Amino acid sequence: MALETVSANRSHGGTQGVYRHRSRETGTDMTFSVFVPDHADGARLPVLFYLSGLTCTHANVTEKGEFRRAAAEHGLIIVCPDTSPRGEGVPDDADGAYDFGLGAGFYCDATNAPFDRHYRMGSYVAHELPGLIADHFPVDRSRMGITGHSMGGHGALTLALKHPELFRSVSAFAPIVAPLQCPWGHKALAGYLGNDWQQAGRRYDACALIEDGARVPEILVDQGAADNFLEEQLRPQLLVDACAKAGIPLMLRMQPGYDHSYYFISTFMDDHIRWHAERLV
Amino acid sequence: MALETVSANRSHGGTQGVYRHRSRETGTDMTFSVFVPDHADGARLPVLFYLSGLTCTHANVTEKGEFRRAAAEHGLIIVCPDTSPRGEGVPDDADGAYDFGLGAGFYCDATNAPFDRHYRMGSYVAHELPGLIADHFPVDRSRMGITGHSMGGHGALTLALKHPELFRSVSAFAPIVAPLQCPWGHKALAGYLGNDWQQAGRRYDACALIEDGARVPEILVDQGAADNFLEEQLRPQLLVDACAKAGIPLMLRMQPGYDHSYYFISTFMDDHIRWHAERLV
Repeated sequence: MALETVSANRSHGGTQGVYRHRSRETGTDMTFSVFVPDHADGARLPVLFYLSGLTCTHANVTEKGEFRRAAAEHGLIIVCPDTSPRGEGVPDDADGAYDFGLGAGFYCDATNAPFDRHYRMGSYVAHELPGLIADHFPVDRSRMGITGHSMGGHGALTLALKHPELFRSVSAFAPIVAPLQCPWGHKALAGYLGNDWQQAGRRYDACALIEDGARVPEILVDQGAADNFLEEQLRPQLLVDACAKAGIPLMLRMQPGYDHSYYFISTFMDDHIRWHAERLV
Repeated sequence: MALETVSANRSHGGTQGVYRHRSRETGTDMTFSVFVPDHADGARLPVLFYLSGLTCTHANVTEKGEFRRAAAEHGLIIVCPDTSPRGEGVPDDADGAYDFGLGAGFYCDATNAPFDRHYRMGSYVAHELPGLIADHFPVDRSRMGITGHSMGGHGALTLALKHPELFRSVSAFAPIVAPLQCPWGHKALAGYLGNDWQQAGRRYDACALIEDGARVPEILVDQGAADNFLEEQLRPQLLVDACAKAGIPLMLRMQPGYDHSYYFISTFMDDHIRWHAERLV
């Protein structure tokens, strides 16, 4: 598959690139960033996918996530995709709201028209993007981890639970742990999945997936205790309960005073990079 | 003086705030950011001023500079001012160019109409802002350092050379070391200082200040070797020569492959934080 280099900058002893390609899943051009630490000739490095939250593109975490220093130290490639298809002909929220449509793909494969044509972020992140990355970067596909923030935390948890053979480690920052049980999730799953969303949505809800038998070896979650979205949208206690019942070790760290912003994400990024590096090396 | 809190976010074990006040120097509202690491009650911390480059506000480095982790580790307060006055009635470049007027105050006190009314970034950064910071934050004014990038590196070098009694340590990222000898500097100094700019501009040119007898104990400069502006605008060799002649120890580190962006700045930010912390403790 062809890959266009949008930009490449030396940073923290590696190369921070931004790339664009034509996606067969979304039927659109997709832009993403990849950080590759310097490495020995012929080496294949483990890779961590970072999924962003509502309203973001690849750029937010690439500029503000502060992941490169630790990634270079641990020899980890970091891949940051966009949060939805974009471009002419891609349908958006009817009111242009921030929590559905553009910038809000929820890492699912839509089945409801008109969204089913382009909104295939689930298959894009799980299959197409890792294949593309393996074709163009020195990654070891047997050592892939996944993390993300908010909607992207939801994406990381659900994709790891559905594909434990693809993603060997999973963590999240302030994830939406149960879209079926919060307003953001209701709106997204109903919009993308249609009338059957409450049943079909169980494949896109970390807590429901665990209830239905999906398993991962362990989960790290950081959550700001001063996060405005904590009680209505994120509801980490639901994940605590689901993991406890299923016997999945969950390390949930409530961080006093921290909110939902990149000031929070960047603070704990080092810990997540190390967590994944230890499990992918 | 009154200070309005625009935002405050917990980050890296401290508070990243953005504040606004009415400046007596510029006659406008001025916005700046301050990071305060957690500290013992009653402690007074050293402070590092970071001056930004052309087109920036306080926000660029605050979001992309990656300075908080090291600042918290070393117990250093970081203050990031804007690069010019802004608002109704503040004159801009006649053609709206990026390298003069708004976002391009060059850390001087303009004497040429109509810029002399508001463009007083030299006195603002050297005097008004440190006083304001001392009134509102737990800083030790006897332990202040200064750094900056590009135009802000010029600001840091010239302010430290003119006020060694105020700034005890100085470093810069890819600084304009001799505005009198580059196109950006010609335009800015002529515009802000008027007909006499070549003579008056010697107070706003690090190399000229050193030639004219100004001294600092030592200087750290990082410079990307792949910086597009290296040869025409930045010209680090002029600073090397001036420092050699004056006997000022200059540690100039040419960094292979690095450009002029925040990807470069953030890579070497840790080293600069540590450099200042060692000299301010």
